[in-house]
Amino acid sequence: MSDTLNVINIGLSSFADAVAGAGGTAVNVNWRPPADGNVTIGKALSSLVHNQSVDQANQIAFDKYLNAQPVLEGIGRAGDVLPNMGERCILHSGPPIDWQNVCGPVHGAIIGAILYEGWASDKNSAENLLKSGEVTIDPCHHHAAVGPMAGITSPSMPVWMVTNAIGGNKTFTNLNEGLGKVLRFGANSFDVLERLKWMQTILAPVLNEALARSGGVELKPLMAKALYMGDEIHNRNAAATGLLLKQLVPHALRSGLPNDDIADAIEFIAGNDHFFLNVSMAACKAMLDVAHGVPHSSMVTAMARNGVEFGIRVSGGGDTWFTAPAPVVDGLYFPGYSITDAAPDLGDSAITETAGIGGFAMAASPAIVQFVGGTPSDAIARSKEMVPITLGRNNALTIPALNFSGTAAGIDVRKVVDTGILPLINTGIAHKDAGVGQIGAGITRAPLACFTQALEYLQENLNA
Amino acid sequence: MSDTLNVINIGLSSFADAVAGAGGTAVNVNWRPPADGNVTIGKALSSLVHNQSVDQANQIAFDKYLNAQPVLEGIGRAGDVLPNMGERCILHSGPPIDWQNVCGPVHGAIIGAILYEGWASDKNSAENLLKSGEVTIDPCHHHAAVGPMAGITSPSMPVWMVTNAIGGNKTFTNLNEGLGKVLRFGANSFDVLERLKWMQTILAPVLNEALARSGGVELKPLMAKALYMGDEIHNRNAAATGLLLKQLVPHALRSGLPNDDIADAIEFIAGNDHFFLNVSMAACKAMLDVAHGVPHSSMVTAMARNGVEFGIRVSGGGDTWFTAPAPVVDGLYFPGYSITDAAPDLGDSAITETAGIGGFAMAASPAIVQFVGGTPSDAIARSKEMVPITLGRNNALTIPALNFSGTAAGIDVRKVVDTGILPLINTGIAHKDAGVGQIGAGITRAPLACFTQALEYLQENLNA
Repeated sequence: MSDTLNVINIGLSSFADAVAGAGGTAVNVNWRPPADGNVTIGKALSSLVHNQSVDQANQIAFDKYLNAQPVLEGIGRAGDVLPNMGERCILHSGPPIDWQNVCGPVHGAIIGAILYEGWASDKNSAENLLKSGEVTIDPCHHHAAVGPMAGITSPSMPVWMVTNAIGGNKTFTNLNEGLGKVLRFGANSFDVLERLKWMQTILAPVLNEALARSGGVELKPLMAKALYMGDEIHNRNAAATGLLLKQLVPHALRSGLPNDDIADAIEFIAGNDHFFLNVSMAACKAMLDVAHGVPHSSMVTAMARNGVEFGIRVSGGGDTWFTAPAPVVDGLYFPGYSITDAAPDLGDSAITETAGIGGFAMAASPAIVQFVGGTPSDAIARSKEMVPITLGRNNALTIPALNFSGTAAGIDVRKVVDTGILPLINTGIAHKDAGVGQIGAGITRAPLACFTQALEYLQENLNA
Repeated sequence: MSDTLNVINIGLSSFADAVAGAGGTAVNVNWRPPADGNVTIGKALSSLVHNQSVDQANQIAFDKYLNAQPVLEGIGRAGDVLPNMGERCILHSGPPIDWQNVCGPVHGAIIGAILYEGWASDKNSAENLLKSGEVTIDPCHHHAAVGPMAGITSPSMPVWMVTNAIGGNKTFTNLNEGLGKVLRFGANSFDVLERLKWMQTILAPVLNEALARSGGVELKPLMAKALYMGDEIHNRNAAATGLLLKQLVPHALRSGLPNDDIADAIEFIAGNDHFFLNVSMAACKAMLDVAHGVPHSSMVTAMARNGVEFGIRVSGGGDTWFTAPAPVVDGLYFPGYSITDAAPDLGDSAITETAGIGGFAMAASPAIVQFVGGTPSDAIARSKEMVPITLGRNNALTIPALNFSGTAAGIDVRKVVDTGILPLINTGIAHKDAGVGQIGAGITRAPLACFTQALEYLQENLNA
């Protein structure tokens, strides 16, 4: 067959197309210049790639992530158990932001939390508390916590408590309210606050008592099972929610609490397939926090969005957030809504992708494409696409459809900048106005600028 | 490219290999003569294929199967609710068989049931009751029932009751005992009988009360969800079991029954991922029984094995069982066991494959290959392989990994004989001796002889 031209083409596919057009065969390698051709970043990259200090630091950080054993231990009161939260602070998702600059749903949720706490009796007074500085806001991530969408957590709220049995670090997250009109999408009407009070007074004690009697629930084996049952454990948590319920119900029954309260609690959880999401997020944060703070490591330890900015934290990046404008998600919108109605990307839930699940484990969840778009084969392709930008595989979290290989995990800032492959995130989409709620879901990407900034930080720090 | 030989080869692949060896290209079509070349069967086949009476009958039967809506309604006592069972009869799986000829596990289970009923106080006396004809055995299928493995059901046992809301036909099945030493594998020791008594006196009332308060559980939507959650609902029922539990627990809690009983019942179910199997089987039988009895229809309405013979029933085949020797399954054996330890194929659970799930829906369950062997891509290939021998798709039971297409369902005797593609079955493997239990699992095939006999019956009946 020596009369046929066989070509490997790297970069622009139009060259390959020309070869094929002339009767030859061409394999096209989807390549682009590192950092989109930015010379400064390219130089920083070349000093960090194959750098032994960075490689060793990454191995340490990645091993800590792999070895983590998050255990769900109980429910506490946020103001009592979150480190340095205080009694007049409200936590939000994503990197730091001034309260004046937050997006619609976050603003609505902050006001809702002030009303829920009883610090003000109407929205104007609540707003005045923010203006006067009597009530402050701060990222969940600065208090060992995470929250989906607006992520709003105030001192009286019940929070899940997760401990990494290997390392001892603790993480926290609020309880999932379900879909529809809920605080995390900025709703703050009476029924929303009533539900939050019921969660505080009935649901939380039932769960806490059941957890105490269970001796704690090991989360990684539960999450591994859920990956075998069609969850990617970010936007699909149907299996994980059921598995958690199955473990807790017998203990709840033996708690001596009123049967009607237990039945109400179980029905609330059974009616909300997203209930496990927050637990998944706290588990992921526990796995990643322990990997944070290894000098020179280029492993990403958090991705989070506040509805205005997208921020990442890196193991060797100290307390710095590397931020860029949050993208608006071009996803599947519910009937009557479009991308013009959407708030920019929002929530701490991208901690799941940072830990190798969610969008990174889409291949485990062919059914998720009905929610976020695409086809089951796209889902498989997307999981594979994440392999080149990660440090390795998490063999405690495997994916049957990929021949039981571990999920790709440990995003390496260097590899993202080098390949131009951006971490993907399965996400819900909030309406830009407070209280409308979820209007869609889709797949988005972390902005490259976060990673180039982190790369520069790491390079400067390496030379310092 | 006119210098290359391009060939489509039908049948023996060695011809295609020769073309390829000479530098040409050959697509091989895996074809074999209908009925393995048997002329009599071939003639019967040619009179039935494209026969309008058969086609119309199949459309009627298949539509009845598709329209069925099985609802789990409660728990009854077998002797009270099963049609014509009587008080001295023990039901077994598969086609009819004399008690002297049953395999080891079925014999052990029959003896166990006699002891459980208190008809005899030791094994010798139990055996004498069989010899004297005081106690008789009969297939589950003859009493609107199904049972996994030995399938043994005696009058005092609690049975699930399923009603097809479209059609009104009712089906029944015993309750799943879990794995290990259990009656359905022929174990009959004191602890096995004690567990059965607990199931009768504690578990069954809790489930019955919860079901009564729930108003019944619609099974097809539940099974559809389970297919999205990695079950094929025959050998993997982890999701379906959890979904059933989630629906029943709040009702059980409000039943007024003792909390400890409810907690024990929930823990028993939560600890047995196969618990839903029996319910799945009764649901499948309800969908298929309503399709039975359409004159001239060549749709298979039951496949079942008694550990000696494999039998099928066909919609237009009346009460006739078309049987052949049950194969021994070449599957994945647990450590210490091999195919020489295995009983031949056993149990009514192939009713699931007859209804288009189990082996036919393996593509929904990549994790099942760890249990029955093969790779996830084999699982997908096997679901696709069943398409040519079925009447259509069941769009109420869809498979995400196959782009949400309905499962292939309604096995057509004509198509099996014509293509030589034998229906596949995911199955557990019992030890040939009573009471050892499950020693493996694997994939087996229905014997061709069952289908050729059915074909001959249909042809004779058509001409009669």
